[in-house]
Amino acid sequence: MNDEFDLNVVCLAGGVGGAKLADGLACIVPPENLTVIVNTGDDFEHLGLTICPDLDTVMYTLAGAANTETGWGRAGESWRTIEEAARLGGPDWFRLGDLDLATHLVRTHLLRGGEKLTAVTRRLSHHFNIHPAILPMSDQPAPTIIQTDDDLLPFQTWFVKERWQPTVQKVILPDDVRATPAVMKALERADLVLIAPSNPFVSIDPILNVYPIRAMLMDLPQAVVAVSPIIGGQAVKGPAAKMMEERDMPVTARAVADYYGDLIDGFVYDEQDAGTMDGLDAAQLCIDTWMRSQQDRIRLAQETLAFATRLGS
Amino acid sequence: MNDEFDLNVVCLAGGVGGAKLADGLACIVPPENLTVIVNTGDDFEHLGLTICPDLDTVMYTLAGAANTETGWGRAGESWRTIEEAARLGGPDWFRLGDLDLATHLVRTHLLRGGEKLTAVTRRLSHHFNIHPAILPMSDQPAPTIIQTDDDLLPFQTWFVKERWQPTVQKVILPDDVRATPAVMKALERADLVLIAPSNPFVSIDPILNVYPIRAMLMDLPQAVVAVSPIIGGQAVKGPAAKMMEERDMPVTARAVADYYGDLIDGFVYDEQDAGTMDGLDAAQLCIDTWMRSQQDRIRLAQETLAFATRLGS
Repeated sequence: MNDEFDLNVVCLAGGVGGAKLADGLACIVPPENLTVIVNTGDDFEHLGLTICPDLDTVMYTLAGAANTETGWGRAGESWRTIEEAARLGGPDWFRLGDLDLATHLVRTHLLRGGEKLTAVTRRLSHHFNIHPAILPMSDQPAPTIIQTDDDLLPFQTWFVKERWQPTVQKVILPDDVRATPAVMKALERADLVLIAPSNPFVSIDPILNVYPIRAMLMDLPQAVVAVSPIIGGQAVKGPAAKMMEERDMPVTARAVADYYGDLIDGFVYDEQDAGTMDGLDAAQLCIDTWMRSQQDRIRLAQETLAFATRLGS
Repeated sequence: MNDEFDLNVVCLAGGVGGAKLADGLACIVPPENLTVIVNTGDDFEHLGLTICPDLDTVMYTLAGAANTETGWGRAGESWRTIEEAARLGGPDWFRLGDLDLATHLVRTHLLRGGEKLTAVTRRLSHHFNIHPAILPMSDQPAPTIIQTDDDLLPFQTWFVKERWQPTVQKVILPDDVRATPAVMKALERADLVLIAPSNPFVSIDPILNVYPIRAMLMDLPQAVVAVSPIIGGQAVKGPAAKMMEERDMPVTARAVADYYGDLIDGFVYDEQDAGTMDGLDAAQLCIDTWMRSQQDRIRLAQETLAFATRLGS
């Protein structure tokens, strides 16, 4: 596909699932044709540093530097600083590895110097030898807040510190965040938009919520295709299934397709869920979507792109 | 001395020289009788973190955790994070070790949470198992600025990045910094005040410049004794000798005594400088002042304390 492929592809991505699909795409789409727009609703300030977990997961994955066992952080990581910080009475619920810390230090240094997150991410990507564009959805802070039965929790407090156990009453997204010029330009140029198999409520919704991303996806002529994060009634990773239960949604791929509604033109879901899409308006592709290996990532990217290309033509 | 010693001792200290004398004092003065007031004019923000080099040197030294080869940082240090940060395009002129970073992360976390530097330093000292009180001279930022022939440089830029090579025209100290209640109380209770063999211009002057520390030392009845940082025409470490030359001062212990003038009641200087104190108003103690070993630190502390005690009685 690489030689002849000249469509502009935009992928909306959260953490692990998004990073894996983006990695598959990066193997087959020329870098100048691929843009990954990443959720920054998870970003937070911790120990004085600005931490952007989803940007880092996408960056580390595309750099081949991700820790594939944990699903977050760097491969070959060590923990000397955070363990000493814990001994000195500091918080250690957010596990910052020694290599990972370097990213946060450099990012924080550049942000404090007045650079925007988009420019900082470009620089870091350059040093990680990543060629596709990785774009934060916004240069403004856009913190996702989780309303539980008892509290309003910053996202990482709920997700990491509380291990996403408290019941989610509501995901509260900020109402005044704007997309960057780079994001707008990428969407305007896009021939295909893929919504990665990320959590719809806390990875994809925060991106769609950034003005005017949702409206652009609704209005522009390009094909929008989502890949289901739910396979056989389970989330491959993370709280998506639990959050669907708490919303009284069926925990099914079909419910994800219905949730995206008329935003999507096509829906890619797993063979385990064959026969559950009767009456769905969007075009459908039923394939093996579970990404266990690098080959799986590439195959899912290829089949999804071919499907989206047919829809868009 | 430990069993019977019940005088309250305050030591004014900068970095390495101050930390060594403080360490000697900590071996012989009961912890409840010893307070080390530390220069914070060197403090700066770097990579998003609040770094307090002199507080850390004193703390690491009293904890037995200092790197005695470099004179700064932690023993047994590693450099994984800063080397990765450099690879990612970050600045690495200020060498932050993996263990040292933990201190800066925890301090920055606590300061951002609203604690004052005095309270943060007490907490860190506790976790380092340090019993004497280590006090920052102020809870306000009090940045020392170095005026060179060409520039106004933040202290660490001049000291570390430029390796203190640019000629110093002037040391500029802020004029609106106040001592903390803890510092005031320690000086009010003090029976003896020792000025450590630290750089007079960039370690001790910044402390004396904090209102009303200089006035308290002039007015209160306690004996004030300084130990010379110049031995045989040389600074044991750092830029003191070079700065004296640039000020057209003789590079001698005597010139240091004259610089402190009527602030001090006693002056301790090295045997190499015997016979150079004719006509000095302050009382004098001429001994071996070079602290090569832990035993040297204890001996200098003992002899200086005994001398100051005689003066104060």
